[in-house]
Amino acid sequence: MLAEIITIGDEILIGQIVDTNSAWMAQTLNNIGIRVKQISSVSDDEQHILDALKLAESRAEVILITGGLGPTKDDITKRTLARYFNMGFRRDEETLAQVSSIFRRANRPMIELNRMQADVPNGCIVVPNRNGTAPGMWFNAHGKIFVSMPGVPYEMMYMMEEEVLPRLKAALNLPFIYHKTILTAGIGESFLAVRIADLEASLPEYIKLAYLPKLGQVRLRLSGSSRDEVQLHADIDQYSKMIANEVREFVVVEEDIPLEKAALNMMQSMNLRLSIAESCTGGYIAHLLTKHSGSSAVFSGGAVTYSNDLKMAVLGVQSRTLEEYGAVSEQTVKEMAIGAMQNFKTDYSISVSGVAGPDGGTESKPVGTVWIAVASKHGVEARLFNFGNKRIQNIERAAAAAITLLISRLKLDHQ
Amino acid sequence: MLAEIITIGDEILIGQIVDTNSAWMAQTLNNIGIRVKQISSVSDDEQHILDALKLAESRAEVILITGGLGPTKDDITKRTLARYFNMGFRRDEETLAQVSSIFRRANRPMIELNRMQADVPNGCIVVPNRNGTAPGMWFNAHGKIFVSMPGVPYEMMYMMEEEVLPRLKAALNLPFIYHKTILTAGIGESFLAVRIADLEASLPEYIKLAYLPKLGQVRLRLSGSSRDEVQLHADIDQYSKMIANEVREFVVVEEDIPLEKAALNMMQSMNLRLSIAESCTGGYIAHLLTKHSGSSAVFSGGAVTYSNDLKMAVLGVQSRTLEEYGAVSEQTVKEMAIGAMQNFKTDYSISVSGVAGPDGGTESKPVGTVWIAVASKHGVEARLFNFGNKRIQNIERAAAAAITLLISRLKLDHQ
Repeated sequence: MLAEIITIGDEILIGQIVDTNSAWMAQTLNNIGIRVKQISSVSDDEQHILDALKLAESRAEVILITGGLGPTKDDITKRTLARYFNMGFRRDEETLAQVSSIFRRANRPMIELNRMQADVPNGCIVVPNRNGTAPGMWFNAHGKIFVSMPGVPYEMMYMMEEEVLPRLKAALNLPFIYHKTILTAGIGESFLAVRIADLEASLPEYIKLAYLPKLGQVRLRLSGSSRDEVQLHADIDQYSKMIANEVREFVVVEEDIPLEKAALNMMQSMNLRLSIAESCTGGYIAHLLTKHSGSSAVFSGGAVTYSNDLKMAVLGVQSRTLEEYGAVSEQTVKEMAIGAMQNFKTDYSISVSGVAGPDGGTESKPVGTVWIAVASKHGVEARLFNFGNKRIQNIERAAAAAITLLISRLKLDHQ
Repeated sequence: MLAEIITIGDEILIGQIVDTNSAWMAQTLNNIGIRVKQISSVSDDEQHILDALKLAESRAEVILITGGLGPTKDDITKRTLARYFNMGFRRDEETLAQVSSIFRRANRPMIELNRMQADVPNGCIVVPNRNGTAPGMWFNAHGKIFVSMPGVPYEMMYMMEEEVLPRLKAALNLPFIYHKTILTAGIGESFLAVRIADLEASLPEYIKLAYLPKLGQVRLRLSGSSRDEVQLHADIDQYSKMIANEVREFVVVEEDIPLEKAALNMMQSMNLRLSIAESCTGGYIAHLLTKHSGSSAVFSGGAVTYSNDLKMAVLGVQSRTLEEYGAVSEQTVKEMAIGAMQNFKTDYSISVSGVAGPDGGTESKPVGTVWIAVASKHGVEARLFNFGNKRIQNIERAAAAAITLLISRLKLDHQ
């Protein structure tokens, strides 16, 4: 079963916002056995939207559309859909009641522009929006299913989870799709490929292997789709195990989870607690950890010590160390890690100090120079990296390297 | 001048990665006067890529393609392009030298799979990749320009900035595109629309106004394209000023910058320093601030105090306060803000404590309950929010609300 996603809005095409909706929608569709054939982002332009709808329905059975449902003049999705399906409009009473209640709760007056949110093409089924004023619209037309949803991520997400996915499951007779991912770190894509070449060649036709490199990690993903769920799982699990065994020393975890989540899981299973002392990563590592629910079972907290004063006051770094070696040095980063571990009373601690850029580089410590340390009762270990000259990438790569170092340390300490 | 972006790779279509490349590419193309007509994400499938190329070239003059250039079997972009343009292959000596040097520097043996990275369709112009082994490829064909680039973001970004954009500017005769954005907070989209309805109706045909809502903010964006750069800027600047004046009390800044950057700029111009005490936002506010270069001029640092122990040890929150009122309370969040301001010696400080979810909610403090405080020498002010029940959204919305509260406070204190 194939779906297409059409996102409507000039803000994506001028790069003002990153389209995070599509990836989330694709994931949730995959989970129920619907494969996304294409994602198209088109402008707030009637003819362009009409063309995109026509092409999408020629390739897929389900067409999900987001965006362009706001109350203002530049939002034209609703009237374009009415035109595409040759429908007039009706005012939907339930939607009107929902819009009114939102305005009542917010104690705001309602104007005609808001009431018009309840006008929908007369042949559509209204999909309620519990978190906003723009209703979703479901069309059974041309032998296909079309669903239009708001572009605001959390409105779309609720609508998908609570309304659209259950209705799709009920309406379609779906095959099973199954993915299994192995997360590796410390080995390049082409070397992995050589190591598992024979296994890859022996895969049955209906199982695909993909290499997904990112920030020093490579994910190996096996995917397949079948009517026989038991056989599908058994086959993919078996090949996945063989591949993981072939490259065992580089395997972080045999699950599709982020690196930091793998670290959290490892530490939780060992009943260990973690703290962090961040300089150039500026809170990013703490954010990576704490965006996962349940992280408080492992993560006690941390310090973002941008200034030298804070490195001394909060982490107990010696002023002599800072003077003699500088903030970006093996000595400082080790004292940061030890200080965090002691002051925050944790079993392990990571620290990072570097030059994220674009300013602040020197000849001996150019932009991209980053020291990372991991401390535990087994001692403290520091490593030097040089990541390049883009600030955001330096932050992201330093964070990934810090967590990889932590995982290696945990593996060694608890073999 | 119209461009299209085609991103190739199953990892986008199954939602394993979010396509951040396209937004960045669209922005940089806009800056040189090239408008993106459509962004299409397609699968690692030859026929699908061929179809996407054909459609894109029917709509646009420039077609930028990313992804599918890795050394492994699932990367088929290069041979599909050769087929599309009906070309054979040649081994490019400069690329081979570049690939070899990367392997020498990394002290890694090179295999035939790596050498094959230097094979390119014989009619293309090679675009060097200074940061990786897959070369870019430029095709002048069918009266259009096609450029294929790696999907790894930092490889693509360097290639665009250093090679592709300068070559596009040289090859094309481009009109000027100009955007001006007003960032507002604290007023809904439809109310803005009513307030500026007359101005919107009076806009000349070639200037478009878009409403871009996000996390309690609405961006108003005027855009136009013209051969007459001076007139274009003058017109858009004039209308932008009129619109900003009409809704002055809600205007944060008349620039297209993130909310936190506006706060940093305000504080830097006032010579003020900021610290942060985060509980449920877990480092995200610190990350938002520190991802901007130059943030160290304002931001001293902060504490991520997930545990109550750290709230007491690092921020000086009284144990009695935690016992009596709990961690998520007006009293605690105020003590956190004051503690950060005093311990970290800053002029202002923000603190956040809440229930991000999905666990940890109670009847009186359900998931989404967040207290935010701002402290300064003028005193401390706290506000209660309830954001809903999605963890990531609670973190993002709490961060946006905290920075909005800081900006309001700064405006009041320094009128």
